[in-house]
Formats: sequence, C-alpha cells, structure tokens
Amino acid sequence: MADAADNSIVLPLQDSLRELHSRYAGLREGKVATYIPELATANPDWFGICLVTTGGHVYEIGDSRQHFTIQSISKPFVYGMALEDNTRAEVLGRIGVEPTGDAFNAISLEAGTGRPRNPMINAGAIAAAGMIAGQTPATRLRRMLEMFSRYAGEELGLDRKVYGSESETGHRNRAIGHMLRNFDILREPPDPVVDLYFKQCSVSVTCRHLGVMAATLANRGVNPLTGKPAIRGEYVESVLSVMGSCGMYDYAGEWLYRVGMPAKSGVAGGVIAVLPGQLGIAVFSPPLDERGNSVRGLRVCDDLSRYFDLHLFNAPASSSSVIRLKFTGAEVTSSRVRTAEEADYLRIQGAGIRVFQLQGHLILSTAEVVVHEALAVATALDTLVLDLKHVLSVNESAGRLFHQLILKLAERGKPVLFTNLSRAAGLRRYLKAKLRDQFDKLFHAFEDNDTALEYCENRLLAAKFSGTTHLRHVRPADYELLRGLAAGEVSVIQSLLVRRHYQRGEVMVHFGDPAGELFFLARGRASVTVTLSSGVQKRLATFSAGMAFGEMALLDRAPRSAVVTADTDVECDSLPIAAFDQLGETHPGIKITLLANLAHGLSGKLRRANREISVFDY
Amino acid sequence: MADAADNSIVLPLQDSLRELHSRYAGLREGKVATYIPELATANPDWFGICLVTTGGHVYEIGDSRQHFTIQSISKPFVYGMALEDNTRAEVLGRIGVEPTGDAFNAISLEAGTGRPRNPMINAGAIAAAGMIAGQTPATRLRRMLEMFSRYAGEELGLDRKVYGSESETGHRNRAIGHMLRNFDILREPPDPVVDLYFKQCSVSVTCRHLGVMAATLANRGVNPLTGKPAIRGEYVESVLSVMGSCGMYDYAGEWLYRVGMPAKSGVAGGVIAVLPGQLGIAVFSPPLDERGNSVRGLRVCDDLSRYFDLHLFNAPASSSSVIRLKFTGAEVTSSRVRTAEEADYLRIQGAGIRVFQLQGHLILSTAEVVVHEALAVATALDTLVLDLKHVLSVNESAGRLFHQLILKLAERGKPVLFTNLSRAAGLRRYLKAKLRDQFDKLFHAFEDNDTALEYCENRLLAAKFSGTTHLRHVRPADYELLRGLAAGEVSVIQSLLVRRHYQRGEVMVHFGDPAGELFFLARGRASVTVTLSSGVQKRLATFSAGMAFGEMALLDRAPRSAVVTADTDVECDSLPIAAFDQLGETHPGIKITLLANLAHGLSGKLRRANREISVFDY
Repeated sequence: MADAADNSIVLPLQDSLRELHSRYAGLREGKVATYIPELATANPDWFGICLVTTGGHVYEIGDSRQHFTIQSISKPFVYGMALEDNTRAEVLGRIGVEPTGDAFNAISLEAGTGRPRNPMINAGAIAAAGMIAGQTPATRLRRMLEMFSRYAGEELGLDRKVYGSESETGHRNRAIGHMLRNFDILREPPDPVVDLYFKQCSVSVTCRHLGVMAATLANRGVNPLTGKPAIRGEYVESVLSVMGSCGMYDYAGEWLYRVGMPAKSGVAGGVIAVLPGQLGIAVFSPPLDERGNSVRGLRVCDDLSRYFDLHLFNAPASSSSVIRLKFTGAEVTSSRVRTAEEADYLRIQGAGIRVFQLQGHLILSTAEVVVHEALAVATALDTLVLDLKHVLSVNESAGRLFHQLILKLAERGKPVLFTNLSRAAGLRRYLKAKLRDQFDKLFHAFEDNDTALEYCENRLLAAKFSGTTHLRHVRPADYELLRGLAAGEVSVIQSLLVRRHYQRGEVMVHFGDPAGELFFLARGRASVTVTLSSGVQKRLATFSAGMAFGEMALLDRAPRSAVVTADTDVECDSLPIAAFDQLGETHPGIKITLLANLAHGLSGKLRRANREISVFDY
Repeated sequence: MADAADNSIVLPLQDSLRELHSRYAGLREGKVATYIPELATANPDWFGICLVTTGGHVYEIGDSRQHFTIQSISKPFVYGMALEDNTRAEVLGRIGVEPTGDAFNAISLEAGTGRPRNPMINAGAIAAAGMIAGQTPATRLRRMLEMFSRYAGEELGLDRKVYGSESETGHRNRAIGHMLRNFDILREPPDPVVDLYFKQCSVSVTCRHLGVMAATLANRGVNPLTGKPAIRGEYVESVLSVMGSCGMYDYAGEWLYRVGMPAKSGVAGGVIAVLPGQLGIAVFSPPLDERGNSVRGLRVCDDLSRYFDLHLFNAPASSSSVIRLKFTGAEVTSSRVRTAEEADYLRIQGAGIRVFQLQGHLILSTAEVVVHEALAVATALDTLVLDLKHVLSVNESAGRLFHQLILKLAERGKPVLFTNLSRAAGLRRYLKAKLRDQFDKLFHAFEDNDTALEYCENRLLAAKFSGTTHLRHVRPADYELLRGLAAGEVSVIQSLLVRRHYQRGEVMVHFGDPAGELFFLARGRASVTVTLSSGVQKRLATFSAGMAFGEMALLDRAPRSAVVTADTDVECDSLPIAAFDQLGETHPGIKITLLANLAHGLSGKLRRANREISVFDY
C-alpha cells in the first residue's frame, strides 16, 4: 500500500490531528518533571501527536520527531520480554497483575511474599528487568535495545545524560531493588538489575517511534511498517492487559471509562494508547499532572477517543460479514461445459451444492456464523464448499468448529470441500492432527472453486447418468453445432472435415495461432486455458465429445487468445475456416443453420454469465 | 436466520460446552453463600452454562433454566439505567469509576466527598439505585423490571423469598444508605432506595436469561433475540468499562489478564462475561470462592477464553477487509449499451472511474483504509464511486473522513458518488449538516452502481464526443446489425421494415408477449428491465439510435422475458420475424450477414460479461 506521502493531498485524519494539536498547544497546565535534573530541562511547549494504523499508515503532527526518554512507557515492553524469556508461571509467581490504586513509585509489595502487585509500578518493572535473559549485563542491555528497536522499526539507543541523571538520583529504586532481593523476587545482586532498569527508562525515542510501537501492539506484535514481529503474538494480550488495568496508575479506572484503550504514560511526557486490531496512538508533551501523566497527552487521547469513537468496548458486531458470497451450483457452474441434458439437470440439482466464500479473520464468533449457516441448510445440502480465498487468518477456535462440522456432515454423507487454502496452511495442519487416519477420507482441498464445483457436479451427475462422458464416441450427425441439419447436409459438412488425433496433454491450439479452423470433438476432453498476469493458469472451459470449440474464429478472425490442451486422448474433426466461408456460396442453408446454432449457443452462454454476475450482488 | 434447534445436528459449539460442563460438574470446591438464609438453600450441584452470540444463536447446557437471584450482576444494568435517567456528569459526580482492590461489601467512600469509588461495590450500586427515575417507589421498581426484561427478552420478576430474606438481614446495606444520605449522595430518605436495591438483587433469572443479557451488552445494547434495544448504545461502553475495571472486585486485574472480558459475578452463583461485538457468556453454579465469585463460573470462563481465544486484547486487524471489491469503469460498464466507438473509448478511459464496494462497519480504522486507498489513486482518478450496499453501519468518525475526502477531491474537480445509501441514512444526514450549502453541489447519491456508472461514463464521453446520442437520427444503412450489407441489400431489408413511434414512457414490449419482431432504434433511447423476485426493477440494458434489440426472439422464439420501455420519444423500425425467416429463402446472403453480425454482437457481450465476472475474484 502506498504511503500517504506519495501524493500532495493532506489526508483527512491528518487534518483532525492538526486541529487537535492547535486546540491544546496553548494549554499551560501541568509541570515538567523535576525529580531528576535532566528531565527538568525539557521544553514545556514540545507537543507532538502520532497515530499509526495496523495497515501501516502514519499520521503525525507537531514535535513528533523530538527525542525524549521513554521512561515508564518502557515497562509494558520489558514485561512482554520477561514473558518471552521465562515461563508464564515464573513471571506470575514473581510479579502480580492487580492494580493497586496507588501512585507510580509506591513500593506496593504483597504482604508476605513481597511480590510487586503489578509490572507497571517501579517495583514490578524492576522485577521484570531482573527476568531478562542474558549471560552478562551487556548482553541483557543489547537484547533489550534490540527488542525496543523491533517495535520502533528503527535502531534505538540510550540518552546517556538522562541515564546518568537517573543513576545518580535513583536511591528509591535501589531501595526497591534490595527489598526485592530480600524477598527473593530478584535472584541476583540487585544493583545491575536496577542499572538495567535505569537504562530501559533512558531509551531515547520520538513520538513517532512510540506511535509505531503502540501500533505494533495493536497489530498482535507485528510491526506494521516493517512487517516483522517484535514479540510473540500470544504475549500481546498479557502486555495489553497490564496496561489496561494498571497502565495509568490510580487513574486507570477513569481512563478505561473515558478513553477505553490500554495505555501507558511516562514522566518525560509521553503517552501511548493501543486500540487492538486497529491503531496505536502516541502523544508527547512534557508538562505532567499531579498523577504524573502528561496533561496534553491525556486531553488528546480523551478527545481522539470521543471524536473518533475509539472506545474498546464500543465494538460493532464483527461476525455479520464473514460470508462474502453465497451461491449454489445451480447459479454458478464449473467451466466444464455440459451437454444440454446434463446442464438442465444441474440447473435443478445444483442447488444442493452450496458455496460459501468466507472473508476476514476466522475466529470463534465468525466461524460460528459459518457453521450455523451451513447446518441450517444441511438437509438440502449435497456438498458444502468453503472458499478461503479472502480469509486473512484462521485461529484454532475456528479450526475446532470446522473439524466438528466436517464430522457432523460426514455422518450424513455430505462432504465439505475447502478451496484456496494456501493462506490457511494452519487449518490444514490442525485438521490433519484432529482427523488423523480419517484425514484422507474426510479432508477435501481444491485449488479453486472451479475444480471444486466440477467435482461436485460430477458427483451429482454420476448418480443420474451412468457411463463417463469422455469415453463416449460421438458421430458428426450428433454434433451439437450441426443440430437441425438434414442427413444430406451433415454429409456435406462431413466431407469438409479433417480427422485429427491428439494425445493426452498435447496442445491442440497455441496462443497467437491464426484462427484457421473450427473443432468438433468426436472423443475425449479438451480444456481452454489462459495464463493470467499473475502467472496463474486459469481454465476457461472444458469440452466433451459432441461439442465444438474455436468458433470465435468464425466471427472475428482474430488470432487465438487462449490455449487448448487435450485432457485425454482426443479424436476430433476440424472444419477449415475457408470451407466454412465457402458454404455461404455453395450451401447457404447449411451456413444459416450453423450460424443460428452458433448464435443460440452464445446466447445460452451469455445467459449463464449473466446469472453468474447476478450472484455477486454489486 | 434459523435457530439451531431447527435441525437434529448438535452444533459444534454445543459439544464444547457439554465437554466443559462435564469437566467441572464434579468439582467440589467453594461454598454456597450463607449470608442470607434463603441463598443457603441452593443446591451446590446446580451448574448451567449459556453462550449467546450477537447473531442471536443460543447455546446452553446443564441447569441453564434453573431460576436463581441475579444479586450483584444487577449492578452494571442498573448503573446503565442511572446513566440513561440522568446526565453523565450527575452520575459521575455521585459515583466514581476507580477500582478499589477491596471486597464487594467494602464501603469504600471517597474521603471528603463520600462518593462511592465505583458502582460495582454495594455503596455505588445503592447510589445508582437512588438515581433511577420515577415518581413513586412502585414506578421505579416497574421501570427497573422492564429494563431487566428488555435485556433478557422475557418478563422477569422478583424472588419474594430472597427479597424477604435480604430485607430482614440487610443491616449493613441500610447503614451504607444512611452514610450515602449523610454525604448527600442520596438526596432522599435512604430506606426506599435500599429497598429498591434489595429488590434489584432479588430479580429471578436463569443462566439463559443472563446469557442473553450479556449478549445484549455485546451487541451495543440491542437484544440479539428480540432485536429491540435495552439501553441506548452510547452508554454500553460505560457499563462495560465499570465491569472491566471493577466487576470482579479484587480479582479484576487477574480476571482481565486471564479471561480478558468485562464481567460481573453475583453471590447466588451467577457470572456473566461480555466479548463486545461477539458474544455473551453466563455461568451458574452456587459454590463461591473466598472472594465471592462462583468457583465453576471462573473456571468455565477461564477455559472458554483460552480454548476459544476470546481475550478482548487479542483482536485481529479489523480494517483489512473493508473493501469487498474494487473495479474500474474499464472493467465493468453500465447497462447503457454504447456504440463501438464509445465502447472503445471507455475501455481505456473508464480506468479513471474507480468503484470501491465497501462492507461491514465503517468506523475510523476501516474508513481510514478507504480514504487512504482513494487518495492513493487520486491522480489517475476521474470519479470515485463508494458503494455502501454491504455496509452494516457508518459511525460519525467515518462520516468525518468521508466529508474530508469529498472536499479534497472536489478541489481537484473529482466527484465522489455514493450508491446504495439506503442502509446508511445517517451518513447522508451527517454530510448534509457538514456540507451545508455545498451539499447539493458536492453530494451525489445514486440508487445503484449501474446508474452511477452511467453517470460517470456520460461525464467521460461528454468530454470526448459532442452532441447527445438520443437526438441523433440514424438511417437504416447505419444500423449496426446491417453492417456489411451492400446498398441494395439494405434496401431489401428496408422494404421489410415497419416504422413505429412511441412516446416517452410507453411500453414497447410487454413481458410474456410472443416474440414477433426485431427492433431497430432510429431515434431516441429504450431500456430493457426485469422485475426481480424482491420486487425491485432492474435495468438490463439501454439502447440508443442505431442499435437493435429483441434479437433473442430470432434465436429461440420464446415469449418476451423482459419489458422494453421508451426512455425518450422513440422512432424505430420493426422487422417481423416471419420476414426474417423468409430471408433464408429469398436472400440467404443477407440472412448470413445478419446472423454473423448477431453472433458477433453476442460474442462481444459475452466477452464483456466474462470480464465482469473476472473482477469478482471468487
């Protein structure tokens, strides 16, 4: 997707951020943090806003490229890293997840165990820093900086001045470190851990960096700009949970109520907020309120949430549009061309073939809709086709429901076919593991809907018509295009035909060939295919004995626009175009019948195409 | 949508609930509440689970129809009602929204103001009950019961025994009432308010009722079974917020971390959990843990969340599938039939007509994707068509972005057309309010894509071809179907033609008429329409001077399958079918040319239809 900067139009969202920025730029409330001297030098007018979507679009305004230190905003990210570096039980055993209702620097250790109440207060954050893996302090720092850099999509480093200032004045945090060591929450000497904590707080970032970091959390841990993971997806919900319940200290309840997004603030004036699945927001403005949160940061998040209806709990029903398209085999047929008799049969019985084209993310609530709809039509169903071409992801819950669906329909002899599974390899693996020795029998995957539909149609036709079409040998008198000709007229045509033989797999018509003849299939099957710009081979039609192809040549005399290949060994009769032209002079009546049959065939195809178009509901 | 009960197949989700139910049915932990005598009579083996989707599907197992009292689960619902009955400022002024980390019956009033910390503790809940509107206690109770009944979709009443028991033993709550009166949080005598509170706690429900109530919150306040609202949508996020931060008392942080859904428990053994936009869960099992939460209830919610990946913060990116379909006016054309020259021009220039068919809910993050994609092609754009046929809702944020998009494209002379707006009346109103006196100039709405495409095509063609088609008078020699005939041959045809005149709006061909003639349009425009089963009139084609219609009759001799109406005053030439048939005898050469032209025209239409089909990517 092109970046917004590509064109000169200022994007709508950008305008809103500008408006919001100018609304609060003049606000003079709050005080710049002074508890460490280096922070006190911040300009109270610095003010940047950045919003980044999970689609990777960045909107920024004001001092969004001004560097400052991350401070407490580092805490959720380091907590996520602690979860990756240890077992969850180890982490939960040493750091709680309950909000305290206390201020950020409260020591808040659990009575008895000494376990910090949560990882967003300093004690919990130091405990988390103590759980970062690495043989030496240098390794741990390097790993930590690499982690932050993955989130930001750029290499981040330390602000040495702030670090020095933190280190000189961090007595309270050193005290916490020793307390944690006393309770065995820290298993090693506390000073290097506290030092690592000072460093994590001193990571130098911009508002834009924080916006991308927040969007990475919104995007299940995958940086939406680089496409690379910053944290394993399974831990993102835990990181967001502690931000949600404890990220804003004793303002957490009101924050959740008003803004409705997991968030974290830092004393240098940064705030991030995350709307899972949608976007990340970062604001930077140094003046803080009495709780230690950026005054402008809070206002901007509050306004953005209200203005753009971003409250997490205000979610519209997600499941309603999981089915992009529904159609039956009576409405859309495969490109296998059928005899009139077969086509008539499929026009009715094809209703038992149900195709659901799914889209978006298959999770419990969306898969439930699919399964429910499928079972609601189970009685009328012959075969169910689930097309996953537009599916973005399939989680295990959806896999569970599909597994059950396959078993339940199999009991009634109704197969479930999956098409376009390439983007849902996990589903195949899941079903393989669950179906085990039944997998080969019950799991049906087709490359596309066309081949799946052909399979379904063949299933229906096999029950009605005995014998397989491609073995049939058709005589010229029975060629569809010669319908209505008298026996003598057929003989005239027959005298013009040239018998040809092709082996299975042989190309009968090459792309770009001059259009020199019309083919009648006497025996076997042949398919017309084109190569799409994507390189994919697409089948346009498959003909059986008795049918004609290459007739477009008679109409526009243009070179061949597709390739025809023999699907089986083929016998066919070729009518040279010159002979056809000649007919107008010698046997106009025959030519009139041929042209009328041709037009009639085309009008049938056109009617079928229009029926197909009407399915799409656009 | 049919209910699951319609067919005999047990639904997959149902199986999982059964499994979960049997996993915990034997669990013997926890104690039935005894603080009021009536609760102590509950059977510790009672155990029901119910899951209800926002699509209105109900899955239930075990004692899901056993009645019990709602108890504290009433609190969020009554809080929502207090928000509806008062201004938000009034409610926030009297009840906070911060978690306390305390137990359910803690008094937790804010020092100084006496404001209860949140509405989920008893003090806050009593304060909320005191804010229910109504002249008399009886009115308030009636209104409250009506509210609960709307959520449940069934009439709910009180369990008089439990109410009596609560009322006899509720000294602590009476004390709270007086304390609240003391701080002027309650403005009236406290006893009737506390009495109302006892009654709200004594509402008799089943697990199924609670499941539907939870799903109603998940569904933005609309009961998914009845389709009726139980609370105004704007307050749902507030109700869920207090459940999210305070619903599980001092277990709130861990609950959010582990289960990740706003929830509320009651001492009679009920628990509800809400996954916004997706589903509601209710569990009923009387034995409680030391925090007052149902033991089995917690386990079931925990397992369900883990098993089905329901954690709120684990949302997949929602914006990716907002555009159901994209196509250009070069790929899909209106049903206005163009001359060969015009069609060739549109095959190239039509690329400037961009149609985005949108789907699902238009909120900030999805509308942003649309606007971004639109502006990314702004340079190549001639007209943008936004089709809302598959859109489920449009919120104001999306309206804002569209408003900006319209203005920005208008600056460059590129109109934005909306189609199928009927389900998004709010968007029209919003744009009307924003665009004001520019509305008529900048807002373009069309009934469907067909008419919008025709408008766009006409715009393009007007720039290239001067003069309007329908005023043109075409002579037989220039009829498309007679192309290739010599002058003498045209005269032959001309001698067979019958000149006809129709007035604007007159029906030229009736549905079901025998097919007796082929029409050539000499002047004016005519449209072919069918009436769909839905009653909607659908245009199939519009013809201009020089074109022929009714040709299907020549091929299959079937009665007319559509209606043809004169769009303007029309002059046309009719070729009787008998005369056409005769041509084979008298002038076979002419008939061959006519049939070849006919087949050529059909193959062109077929090619166009196939191009259209390929757009749909199914």
